Amino acid sequence: MVNRINHVAVVVEDLDTALRFWRDALGLSLHKTEENPGENVNIAFLPVGESEIELLQPTDSDSGIGKYLAKKGQGLHHVCVEVDDIEAAMQRLVEHGIELINDTPRVRDEGTRYAFVHPKSAGGVLVELYQLP
Amino acid sequence: MVNRINHVAVVVEDLDTALRFWRDALGLSLHKTEENPGENVNIAFLPVGESEIELLQPTDSDSGIGKYLAKKGQGLHHVCVEVDDIEAAMQRLVEHGIELINDTPRVRDEGTRYAFVHPKSAGGVLVELYQLP
Repeated sequence: MVNRINHVAVVVEDLDTALRFWRDALGLSLHKTEENPGENVNIAFLPVGESEIELLQPTDSDSGIGKYLAKKGQGLHHVCVEVDDIEAAMQRLVEHGIELINDTPRVRDEGTRYAFVHPKSAGGVLVELYQLP
Repeated sequence: MVNRINHVAVVVEDLDTALRFWRDALGLSLHKTEENPGENVNIAFLPVGESEIELLQPTDSDSGIGKYLAKKGQGLHHVCVEVDDIEAAMQRLVEHGIELINDTPRVRDEGTRYAFVHPKSAGGVLVELYQLP
């Protein structure tokens, strides 16, 4: 049901500063950066094997990610796992008493369907589910 | 240089409770559990694609992981990336001004060589390097 870790997301204050570690020092390649004004975040995508490290820089301190950064500081934010059938995965989670943040999958422009599990149901970890198009 | 994410480590209060989410509800398989008295932690290994989710339950509140749990609570703890040549990777990091927790690689029983990057040099993320035997 779960195929792989799609990405591990990291909240950072500044993408350029963060890239000095992840790209320049650690040696990951930068696939692309992307502005996502809808979620008030700029994102850098760095592939690692079959997964990615995603660096998230909030562009608005009032956004969800912006508030997270202000409260918790920089660091690991969430882990995203890929599933074949997100609705089946969500149903299975609910049947096990797990609370989801999204009752139904949301859809990105390119067709990826996603939903988040509430950290209080996942031992403090924000878990994202992805179903690729 | 960096081949893949070897594992994402999660600190939990109790392995059995955490497995109710990761194994029973999310559907990951439990490869094994392991007691590591040297580091005062019990670990559950759950493969996901080419990576693993590792659940860490401290067995001593005075250990490093135990203190982390008491201070920060449950959640994402570190991300471990695999490299071909850990000494070359560490040298490159130091040359870029990155502070390491371990000056030289440590070695596990089965021969895996590992070292940690200090979170203050990695934007708040505890990053582990692995070189498999």
